[in-house]
Amino acid sequence: MHPIDQLLAAVDRKACPIVVGLDPVLSRVPEFIRRAALKRYGNTLEAAAESLFRFNRGLLAALHRLIPAVKLQSACYELYGPEGLRVFHRTVALARKLKLLVIDDAKRNDIGHSAALYAGAHLGRSPLIEGFSRRPKADFLTVNPFLGSDTLSPFITECRRCDKGLFVLVRTSNPAAREYQEARIDNSPLYLKIAGDVQIWSAENTGTRGYGDIGAVVGATWPEEAALLRRTMPSVYCLVPGYGAQGGTADQAVSAFDADGYGALINSSREIIFAWQNPRYQTSPSDPSAYAEAAVKAAINMRDALLRSLKRAGKLPAGW
Amino acid sequence: MHPIDQLLAAVDRKACPIVVGLDPVLSRVPEFIRRAALKRYGNTLEAAAESLFRFNRGLLAALHRLIPAVKLQSACYELYGPEGLRVFHRTVALARKLKLLVIDDAKRNDIGHSAALYAGAHLGRSPLIEGFSRRPKADFLTVNPFLGSDTLSPFITECRRCDKGLFVLVRTSNPAAREYQEARIDNSPLYLKIAGDVQIWSAENTGTRGYGDIGAVVGATWPEEAALLRRTMPSVYCLVPGYGAQGGTADQAVSAFDADGYGALINSSREIIFAWQNPRYQTSPSDPSAYAEAAVKAAINMRDALLRSLKRAGKLPAGW
Repeated sequence: MHPIDQLLAAVDRKACPIVVGLDPVLSRVPEFIRRAALKRYGNTLEAAAESLFRFNRGLLAALHRLIPAVKLQSACYELYGPEGLRVFHRTVALARKLKLLVIDDAKRNDIGHSAALYAGAHLGRSPLIEGFSRRPKADFLTVNPFLGSDTLSPFITECRRCDKGLFVLVRTSNPAAREYQEARIDNSPLYLKIAGDVQIWSAENTGTRGYGDIGAVVGATWPEEAALLRRTMPSVYCLVPGYGAQGGTADQAVSAFDADGYGALINSSREIIFAWQNPRYQTSPSDPSAYAEAAVKAAINMRDALLRSLKRAGKLPAGW
Repeated sequence: MHPIDQLLAAVDRKACPIVVGLDPVLSRVPEFIRRAALKRYGNTLEAAAESLFRFNRGLLAALHRLIPAVKLQSACYELYGPEGLRVFHRTVALARKLKLLVIDDAKRNDIGHSAALYAGAHLGRSPLIEGFSRRPKADFLTVNPFLGSDTLSPFITECRRCDKGLFVLVRTSNPAAREYQEARIDNSPLYLKIAGDVQIWSAENTGTRGYGDIGAVVGATWPEEAALLRRTMPSVYCLVPGYGAQGGTADQAVSAFDADGYGALINSSREIIFAWQNPRYQTSPSDPSAYAEAAVKAAINMRDALLRSLKRAGKLPAGW
């Protein structure tokens, strides 16, 4: 099944256009989890990695009925080496078992030969390791376009072999995004040129509702650009980071949606998974399920704020 | 010790400005190595990963007296998951034991918070895992600048905490590099703007010979741009891919060197490590050291071609 059709089905089923970032940081994992892992594995990388996995597992159990997708920031796992990578794969496997779509946020790229290896590593079943690996892979991968279109081709090829999708960095959410992304090509900014290319690739393989398999990352912190990009890329689903912790609001995020309230998946990570540390959610330190419940409350708050903003903008999907 | 001073000392000691890419591909590892690993580990990812390590070990044993540095393409290892990552670390440890400088060619980047985690994962001893990990890290990491300067800062900070260095992608060697890298800023190409920024960062922390810790990737396939970039970035050491397999010649590569024959490290990967499959080197299939000897011959050929071109250009370092 086309990856964006899968995503749209999940978004509609849950009436929720949110993706939660499972970006665990050891020092912010509740102490009862860390203590249990230390007891079992000693003061080792295994203990650190196991803590992250148990933290994720509790979040997935609590959140999976509410949200359509999760996003895993690769850096959070790479920090713990092979043990961290194993937790990445275990989390992907569990999320897929719970029928969540999974975005591998690794922002990879390299020249063609290496790009093909990255595509195999993160999305596909590379013929190079056929027969060896049945490792669970994500449904989508984020990629960096700086090297040029010939480095994106191997990823697109792999996607079409395995019904997977990409989110290409078009406009990132950080303050200095404009420095290089607003360089000019034919009198328009570089990010618009990349957006035009993403639209072409995406239109090559659209699902039943007109959206293609090649999406774009469009920061919520740039609402005017997001509205322009929405028009430039009618076939392109947008992954929208920068909501909440990075300053993007629900009203700003709405500009990335199409007129029917689809076409954008709004990401939040720290504000949701670390909600248990936010006084607003008043969790009890003695209750082991409190951190996951706080995450659910934060996700519901975010969803409701988005739906209100969509409604105000006249974009709330019919039937939600 | 300043990372570029370390590199310069090694380059001078060996009179050789080459970095060999340890980018193993399982299907091109000699059969006797693969068979031994399969025998020990069965038809598993461990066997695949072990084959890559033994291949690397043979290459390192044969090449380490000849060359100053090796570069590991992360994608080749990520393809094999946690087992592959373990081989990456074992190879880094062995290379460092043999006094080789090591470049981690992972082309990472993300927004600030995640960039700091990547810097910890690939270069430093992140305080987040202090006490856990004594994993060997590379001396240099390649990074992608597309997201903007605020995403490079965490890497630079980590470098200065640990005496490590970066190579920032400025001009890649692939055919489509120009598509986005030649967007214009103030009427000059984006890659020159990035080069200017890299020069500023590099000049903040120069070693005894005037070169700084922040280097640049400059493709050998664009010799005119390389000459311009050499002038734009007087403090910046260049990592030059694209030699050989990608079409760059010794005469082209010479434009990345300064007037004294320093300032550039020319990379070759497949042409050296898979030289045993090149009829030119006539290896015996029954001799288990033949593949490593072929790599040595290919590396010597490449070095000699470069030194001849440097000499013709009047740039051969004194005493080489």
